Amino acid sequence: MTTAYEVLIAFERETGALAQVAGRLGWDQETVMPRGAAAQRGDEMAAMESVLHARRADPRVGEWLAAAEAADGLGEVERANLRHIRRAYDRAVKVPSRLASEIARVTSVAQGTWAEARAADDFAAFAPTLREVLRLKREEGAALSDGGDVYDALLQDYEPGATAAQLTDMFGAMRPRLTRLIDQVRGAEAPAALSGTFDEAAQMALTARIAQTFGYDTTRGRLDKAVHPFSSGSGNDVRITTRTSLTDPFNCLYSTIHETGHASYEQAIAQEYLFTPLGQGVSMGVHESQSRIYENQLGRSRAFTSWLHGQMEEAFGPLGLPDAEAFYRTVNRVHEGYIRTEADELQYNLHVLLRFDLERALISGELEVDDLEDAWNARFQRDFGFAVDRPSNGVLQDVHWSVGLFGYFPTYSLGNVYAGCLHEALREAVPDLDTQLASGDLSGATGWLRENVQRHGGLYEPRETIIRATGKEPSEEPLMRYLETKFGNLYGLD
Amino acid sequence: MTTAYEVLIAFERETGALAQVAGRLGWDQETVMPRGAAAQRGDEMAAMESVLHARRADPRVGEWLAAAEAADGLGEVERANLRHIRRAYDRAVKVPSRLASEIARVTSVAQGTWAEARAADDFAAFAPTLREVLRLKREEGAALSDGGDVYDALLQDYEPGATAAQLTDMFGAMRPRLTRLIDQVRGAEAPAALSGTFDEAAQMALTARIAQTFGYDTTRGRLDKAVHPFSSGSGNDVRITTRTSLTDPFNCLYSTIHETGHASYEQAIAQEYLFTPLGQGVSMGVHESQSRIYENQLGRSRAFTSWLHGQMEEAFGPLGLPDAEAFYRTVNRVHEGYIRTEADELQYNLHVLLRFDLERALISGELEVDDLEDAWNARFQRDFGFAVDRPSNGVLQDVHWSVGLFGYFPTYSLGNVYAGCLHEALREAVPDLDTQLASGDLSGATGWLRENVQRHGGLYEPRETIIRATGKEPSEEPLMRYLETKFGNLYGLD
Repeated sequence: MTTAYEVLIAFERETGALAQVAGRLGWDQETVMPRGAAAQRGDEMAAMESVLHARRADPRVGEWLAAAEAADGLGEVERANLRHIRRAYDRAVKVPSRLASEIARVTSVAQGTWAEARAADDFAAFAPTLREVLRLKREEGAALSDGGDVYDALLQDYEPGATAAQLTDMFGAMRPRLTRLIDQVRGAEAPAALSGTFDEAAQMALTARIAQTFGYDTTRGRLDKAVHPFSSGSGNDVRITTRTSLTDPFNCLYSTIHETGHASYEQAIAQEYLFTPLGQGVSMGVHESQSRIYENQLGRSRAFTSWLHGQMEEAFGPLGLPDAEAFYRTVNRVHEGYIRTEADELQYNLHVLLRFDLERALISGELEVDDLEDAWNARFQRDFGFAVDRPSNGVLQDVHWSVGLFGYFPTYSLGNVYAGCLHEALREAVPDLDTQLASGDLSGATGWLRENVQRHGGLYEPRETIIRATGKEPSEEPLMRYLETKFGNLYGLD
Repeated sequence: MTTAYEVLIAFERETGALAQVAGRLGWDQETVMPRGAAAQRGDEMAAMESVLHARRADPRVGEWLAAAEAADGLGEVERANLRHIRRAYDRAVKVPSRLASEIARVTSVAQGTWAEARAADDFAAFAPTLREVLRLKREEGAALSDGGDVYDALLQDYEPGATAAQLTDMFGAMRPRLTRLIDQVRGAEAPAALSGTFDEAAQMALTARIAQTFGYDTTRGRLDKAVHPFSSGSGNDVRITTRTSLTDPFNCLYSTIHETGHASYEQAIAQEYLFTPLGQGVSMGVHESQSRIYENQLGRSRAFTSWLHGQMEEAFGPLGLPDAEAFYRTVNRVHEGYIRTEADELQYNLHVLLRFDLERALISGELEVDDLEDAWNARFQRDFGFAVDRPSNGVLQDVHWSVGLFGYFPTYSLGNVYAGCLHEALREAVPDLDTQLASGDLSGATGWLRENVQRHGGLYEPRETIIRATGKEPSEEPLMRYLETKFGNLYGLD
């Protein structure tokens, strides 16, 4: 006899397979799709979304769920699957389908409006659209919140279990330490930047080798060039993209290492979870913890860059830097800039904290769209010490709000915080880590992450995933200590 | 107020978009998919098929159809759409879903069994599976036939309106003329084959230019390498693949020209038909008429090969042939061989006629699987004049029957017959065609085909499509005259 749980999981696996197909379509669009196919592709994506939405809100799921939850003797995996499915189903039925389609319709147009406004450096051209998106997201948050905090309700889509209060405490402790550190770094002598040009085919060849060095399995993925670096897919088909810049090879290399972190997480999840709710990274924050620890704590470490220095000189010839130590300083060079995605390890979190505070105020109604540009610019001046010169370098720089992603930004910094916690635990578990990294051997580090974080997929809740790996409650302290030590040392602040 | 027709067409457009997505997945699998993703991809394809099947057999389609058909004042496009939807819906509901899933299940495994049996040259290893597929296809044909001819019922999936009786007459008239001509050619002196090796990157560069020469729009498609040449997709995203052989550049070039014929057909269909039943080639036979006229009547003509000769010498250096006339003879060299897909223009149809007669006998029960290998070998010896040496060169060479494609083979030769009819009409409409072809100008030919055949998509029934383009009832006579004249001349048989 087939149990309700088995019927439900078979249905979910099929939904998961369809979601993977929709993801493949997104990859196709960014890498190989002929440009004339763009309009038609919109219809194809919409058709897939419509199928997926109908399945997620299918009333039979509610019936199977109720029956499965009432059954005795469920194991850990079964309970975890039911928890995920329950959360997704309740979410789907709480939002009236009228509202869901309105959000889909408005945000699909809003992205184009945002892109045009950004190109024209004209926030006023985007404001009416953003007001509309915000109105709908407030309504959605209210429908999801059961009378609780509206922002918290939206946050659950990206970081189940997290609360704005918790994040506010964490980020509040980080902000003064970050601004103080950045102030000090600004006062010190800056390391040299790379100069010259770097063959783009050689960049791609080197970056492909480095992805494999970090454990990326190319028999179950592939690496291509695209305008934006991204990772997509799950299980045995997880693809990454990177980009090249003739004058900045670090853009290519560190984008690749970052995406390798995301992709390795997906590739490492236990095969038996494939296409079930457990078969993907458990949250945006935990996902980002993997990409960030690969990119920063490992990839930008003194030990690893000493090895990378040799690889780059082999690939491109002399870099014009005296030694590996100078190369390490160049890799970790702190530079002024307006753009989050181009920010260094130190300033990145300040960008996120700014957006987190503004979007909470937007959702609660303390801030309205009309006042957003001024609020952004004032906060930026305060935290970064210089003024935003134009909207495309300020309030218009990110796509997120235009497509309704409220509650997503904080997961970037939460990921950095989690990376800090994991890095501390990793160093305890692998005492000779630096010796390994200095010889280009990442297997100790990535093996530990695979075993302690990645293979579990969605089995444990996000916070619990980190606690199980580190043996401790997550805190910003390890990340802040790491940053203060690293940049204090780099900039001679001791 | 929305009419039943509008509701139905909106639903069909969504189904069409989903079918395009499934097609893109197939392209992905053959070109860019990492090899480790194969098993997972099977689940993804199955999930898409399950969604598509449910939509095609959705009872609401029956209701919308009945209401739409009863409405007054339908135009030509509306009536054509309803005709296609009615045919597909009736087909979907006539086949019990138990039988449909059994066919899907058995054929998905059977392809692997066939591939293994072919590799092992062991027909007995495939026979039990083929018996099972045949049993199911007989049952499906019976369900579809309403008591009429079972083979005819299966044929409708590929060539609506065609009948086995009609094809038997046509093919019966062709067979003796083909075997006589081949006998004569075998007695004459054979032209030289190409010798040497041909840079594969240069083959790809040349073949890409030639695809564009034949009108392929690469802003709405792309050309990649794959194990098997194919064309896939519709509307503004129609992709082709080709392959290269170091010693045989014609394999690459003529595969590309063939697939360009298929792809150009899809690209030329009126944009307003996109994702509706009219938005794709109307039948396998008409589709093949386009690929074959591009490949053979145009691509292997004396006029076009005189231009191609120059292009190839530019790409690869001297070919070791005295002149363009010798090159023309080499391109059209008739060679002995067992394999349909490698057969020349002359022998190809004999391969198809053999399969058509055998599969009709299999479906009717006159022939059983146990006697199939003997029947194949005897017929091959009779028609080709030499014996099959092993099953992989005989009864095991084609994948079609393993995946349940009974009724598909004859559309290859019907396509050749249609290409013959269209070629005759094209020569009347474009009197200086050879002058154009000799200068590498295909626009007169492809423009005429686009205007008279391709743009209509599924608007007219297959046979009617050809009649409208040529002004005549289709017949094998133009094809046979063309072959007898061309090869008589080439081999000095006059």
